[in-house]
Amino acid sequence: MRAARLHEYDTPLSLDDVSQPDLLGPSDVVVRIGGAGLCRTDLHIIEGVWREKVGVALPYTLGHENAGWVEVAGEGVRTVRVGDAVIVHPLVTCGVCPACRRGEDMYCTDSAFPGITTDGGFAQYLRTNERALVKLAEGVEPKDVAPYADAGLTAYRAARKAAEILRPGHRVAVIGVGGLGHIALQALHALCAADVVAIDRSDLALALAGELGADHIVAAGEGAVEAVQELSGGDGVEAVIDFVGEGDSVDQGIAMLRRGGTYFAVGYGGQVNVPTIDVIFQEISVVGNLVGNYTEFAELMALAGGGKVDLRTQTYSLDEINRAIDDLHHGRIQGRGVIVP
Amino acid sequence: MRAARLHEYDTPLSLDDVSQPDLLGPSDVVVRIGGAGLCRTDLHIIEGVWREKVGVALPYTLGHENAGWVEVAGEGVRTVRVGDAVIVHPLVTCGVCPACRRGEDMYCTDSAFPGITTDGGFAQYLRTNERALVKLAEGVEPKDVAPYADAGLTAYRAARKAAEILRPGHRVAVIGVGGLGHIALQALHALCAADVVAIDRSDLALALAGELGADHIVAAGEGAVEAVQELSGGDGVEAVIDFVGEGDSVDQGIAMLRRGGTYFAVGYGGQVNVPTIDVIFQEISVVGNLVGNYTEFAELMALAGGGKVDLRTQTYSLDEINRAIDDLHHGRIQGRGVIVP
Amino acid sequence: MRAARLHEYDTPLSLDDVSQPDLLGPSDVVVRIGGAGLCRTDLHIIEGVWREKVGVALPYTLGHENAGWVEVAGEGVRTVRVGDAVIVHPLVTCGVCPACRRGEDMYCTDSAFPGITTDGGFAQYLRTNERALVKLAEGVEPKDVAPYADAGLTAYRAARKAAEILRPGHRVAVIGVGGLGHIALQALHALCAADVVAIDRSDLALALAGELGADHIVAAGEGAVEAVQELSGGDGVEAVIDFVGEGDSVDQGIAMLRRGGTYFAVGYGGQVNVPTIDVIFQEISVVGNLVGNYTEFAELMALAGGGKVDLRTQTYSLDEINRAIDDLHHGRIQGRGVIVP
Amino acid sequence: MRAARLHEYDTPLSLDDVSQPDLLGPSDVVVRIGGAGLCRTDLHIIEGVWREKVGVALPYTLGHENAGWVEVAGEGVRTVRVGDAVIVHPLVTCGVCPACRRGEDMYCTDSAFPGITTDGGFAQYLRTNERALVKLAEGVEPKDVAPYADAGLTAYRAARKAAEILRPGHRVAVIGVGGLGHIALQALHALCAADVVAIDRSDLALALAGELGADHIVAAGEGAVEAVQELSGGDGVEAVIDFVGEGDSVDQGIAMLRRGGTYFAVGYGGQVNVPTIDVIFQEISVVGNLVGNYTEFAELMALAGGGKVDLRTQTYSLDEINRAIDDLHHGRIQGRGVIVP
Repeated sequence: MRAARLHEYDTPLSLDDVSQPDLLGPSDVVVRIGGAGLCRTDLHIIEGVWREKVGVALPYTLGHENAGWVEVAGEGVRTVRVGDAVIVHPLVTCGVCPACRRGEDMYCTDSAFPGITTDGGFAQYLRTNERALVKLAEGVEPKDVAPYADAGLTAYRAARKAAEILRPGHRVAVIGVGGLGHIALQALHALCAADVVAIDRSDLALALAGELGADHIVAAGEGAVEAVQELSGGDGVEAVIDFVGEGDSVDQGIAMLRRGGTYFAVGYGGQVNVPTIDVIFQEISVVGNLVGNYTEFAELMALAGGGKVDLRTQTYSLDEINRAIDDLHHGRIQGRGVIVP
Repeated sequence: MRAARLHEYDTPLSLDDVSQPDLLGPSDVVVRIGGAGLCRTDLHIIEGVWREKVGVALPYTLGHENAGWVEVAGEGVRTVRVGDAVIVHPLVTCGVCPACRRGEDMYCTDSAFPGITTDGGFAQYLRTNERALVKLAEGVEPKDVAPYADAGLTAYRAARKAAEILRPGHRVAVIGVGGLGHIALQALHALCAADVVAIDRSDLALALAGELGADHIVAAGEGAVEAVQELSGGDGVEAVIDFVGEGDSVDQGIAMLRRGGTYFAVGYGGQVNVPTIDVIFQEISVVGNLVGNYTEFAELMALAGGGKVDLRTQTYSLDEINRAIDDLHHGRIQGRGVIVP
Repeated sequence: MRAARLHEYDTPLSLDDVSQPDLLGPSDVVVRIGGAGLCRTDLHIIEGVWREKVGVALPYTLGHENAGWVEVAGEGVRTVRVGDAVIVHPLVTCGVCPACRRGEDMYCTDSAFPGITTDGGFAQYLRTNERALVKLAEGVEPKDVAPYADAGLTAYRAARKAAEILRPGHRVAVIGVGGLGHIALQALHALCAADVVAIDRSDLALALAGELGADHIVAAGEGAVEAVQELSGGDGVEAVIDFVGEGDSVDQGIAMLRRGGTYFAVGYGGQVNVPTIDVIFQEISVVGNLVGNYTEFAELMALAGGGKVDLRTQTYSLDEINRAIDDLHHGRIQGRGVIVP
Repeated sequence: MRAARLHEYDTPLSLDDVSQPDLLGPSDVVVRIGGAGLCRTDLHIIEGVWREKVGVALPYTLGHENAGWVEVAGEGVRTVRVGDAVIVHPLVTCGVCPACRRGEDMYCTDSAFPGITTDGGFAQYLRTNERALVKLAEGVEPKDVAPYADAGLTAYRAARKAAEILRPGHRVAVIGVGGLGHIALQALHALCAADVVAIDRSDLALALAGELGADHIVAAGEGAVEAVQELSGGDGVEAVIDFVGEGDSVDQGIAMLRRGGTYFAVGYGGQVNVPTIDVIFQEISVVGNLVGNYTEFAELMALAGGGKVDLRTQTYSLDEINRAIDDLHHGRIQGRGVIVP
């Protein structure tokens, strides 16, 4: 089969002919890829940012945001059948460690992360396991929903955690209304009654935020903190979800909080940098967010199925993957890029 | 009456003769002081650390950890009577703002903080209001419990929040087993079944931790992170409560966390400094803690009344206050210093 | 002033000339009534149902769902001024008991309930206190919102508690889409993403449910349990909120639950009657709901202010009150009846 | 192998020679039984109480409270090895249904309950699967801990849920200090700081409660409600856990609650019977409890391993099982009976 593989850091992906993945255990499933989302993390992987964190050996196939159809299923698989359309949770988990047992799949101590630590979905076929699969509703096309598998899930988990503390009359700032942020904005409206303040540097992103019903629109950068303070009566907001996480985004996000407020970190690249006296005197919280668990994934797909969140995508063939990467790098993709093999 | 007042930053307190406080409103109460705890925050006030945060005019009377007897009560006061022994919540709150309405007294938008923003309890009498008072059980001496009003309450709130996420088999590290930490250690044992890891630089403090039943004892400084990792099977602990909050304590506390763990900040002076990629990849939280609310205060006094927490104090007369301050500064006080006018 | 008073159980209210209420304490407020909602509980009071529970002496003025303008304010009142348009929380609370301190106003141990335990709002003026008042947004007419003070608040509290356990893909059945139910339906849509199943005997109510966006409509009575089971894939629903609480409504509501589901009781008159083996084997919960606290009241008014819930009312003059009572008794009121003095 | 099987309802178990269980799937495990607890539910099964609820075909082997050693493990099993000492969660679950995915094993939609719906552990060997096993700490004997698998787990789940709402100064009544209740009492002391009120008809049970540190001891029956009201200052208790669930226990348990209190149902046989007006006016909750999930099981074993709960058992050989059943029926077993094959 064809697969887009990384042979060397800081070089384009190579389109190789490799053998189709096999089942390795009774719960394994091979998925024929219908679409695989392109993520900023793919750029970071190529740049070598994750090299030390995950220690994967090159070459391997990228692509961690996958959907398609069950092609082969192990003998122990009971909940999907060959031919079922499925979307794929990014992690392959064991199901028996303490984290899996309490439903926190991301902390599985015996997991694989295809596309990051092993071969992913920029290919015709992907090996995963039964625990990773959510069946798609009738009529839903894998390539139209693939970005929910990572961008959507990450945005949903952060929005869900924020919604738990947001009550009517509260406000939540969403910094960065891109691939993740535009889903979070919709998820927040579905999950709680707080007003959403959308913040971005790009006019296009702010226009999208307006179209999606953001209650307030604020241009990022100088004056953003003051604008948010002003629209919240001088107090600041109860929650910030930061999908940027670099540059002055972190400092500004934390400065927007009211007393007792929470800053949810999603984007990365920058630094949280706060004197302990401010953490205490304002009694703020900083909360990390890492993708999401299977239950959250199923909830997100229920939201999507009910039309409460909607996704914007732009497709590329597998052969065009390096052009897609270049487009993402230069901000030329509207919504999320999806590779269709 | 006699009162120990700050006339100028970085100078000793002056023992002045001033007039006894009056009632200013129908809910006000004047308390005859039985004891007033001496807090590291008093040293910080004298040094001018809080000058800009609170903007108080000198001279004024310090002392924010007070207990005594009701001397005069306003006409609207219904729950205490003249002569009742009481302990005093550090904040004077309004009772009608949204924060007061939901029980989060510390966020009251119309409050005073005697001893910090107005005259405090290093004096014979203190003005507060009915909402600040918890009646003491029969036979309890104000001077023996005064430090619960701030040191105890702050330690309890942090311990209570940590206990909410701590389950049997979990571990919590307490950094700093001093005035606050030794109460937190006991409160954690009362509120949950997690193992407590006590960490301090001082052998005396570690001896006290052992005496109070800490499940593990670790010397602070080099090797502390490794020791905590090792005793938790290489994973790190589910929660850290940091009563130091300066020097390498913050970095080390955060490094001790396992995935999904929470660092509770209480001590101040230092800096939280973490790359967003680590916040996210480890999915950790940093949570501020500011004193505590009235309900927590009442719960702490129930714990103390039931013998589940115990306090160590050392008393000084009001005239000896500058000696007490000097003793605290030089680490010569065992447990908490209490000024008895 | 004019007031509609109950002189004898099971007789019409009498329109009496009585003296206008005075302030009794520094936090008291006299409100000039703009509108007072008529509640099924008023019928129950007249029938004597509450006689033993509350032990009030006749004659007294009914009306516990009030809004108007501040007419006189005690010297201790700081958050409202004479002339302010306000809606009135049904309870007059003390602010210093443990329940008030943690924000659970309904459990205040030193409270009054005007219209039930003391003189209410079917009159030109009402005495309450500062703690009961929520200021209305500019341009909002008291008579248009008065029913939020009890019907709305009760519906909101139940909806809020249900929303806490409802996730996308879940279903909640609302039994009774009348004065309370039609607000709960809207609040549920604002607070969570679960599908709402509206159940009522009346075609008019079901039509209103459809108009308000209910996700499923089911006729109450025979076959309702089966219909709910079927639309939930045979499993039952995660939550039921029962605004009827009598007849077969309770049994049916409980029978609609899936394993681990919760039945929220709001309506009364009937009986919860379940074998313990079913409580355990299905692991269900039955949860009572009593009006709501001040924070919930403020949240509801924020929802209403943001246009996320909407109220239907029908007005009567104070002189027409016995006709209004008769209309309510015979089901001739659309939405909620409001008495305008 | 030898197995104690039920051939006909209301007759003694028969000691049969049957073939040893095989593995049926790659995750299956055969456990050599070290001990199997005898439960009141075994009596109910023999009496036919569960006949219609579970629809099992006779004959089959009872015994749902099992511990032993791994004898054979399927090829997919990774977390235990042959020879490991293990305790067995009562349910065999699928790991891929929504309930399993969020950690609520008891709601698994593709489960078996050995000893209730299929062959159990009153035998030399038992078939279960990897997901059911918790490894025992070094030196722990299976027969000494077997009752934790059901009695212990059920008591722990109820205690854990109660502990979540119990704060210092609160009170919780435990009705029935038998096999489950004596574990709940200890778990409550480990998990929260509320005072425990132990209630039982038997002097022996009350003596055990005293020995285990119950804060109050009350004789069940007439006067019990008044005694509990009195020791809680006339208000009632915040929570009741009822391990009896029949006779007047349910009515009395509910009558002991204060406003906003919760009745946790565990024992069964009786009826919950409350007017909706009381559910609402007191705003009480009734909460069912069904065994417990795997995470709770692991937490309980951590408590037991740390010496925070302790179990009393009395052993019988497999041949003596009908005598053991007779002893249980006539109240002649101290603590929990354990069958050792």
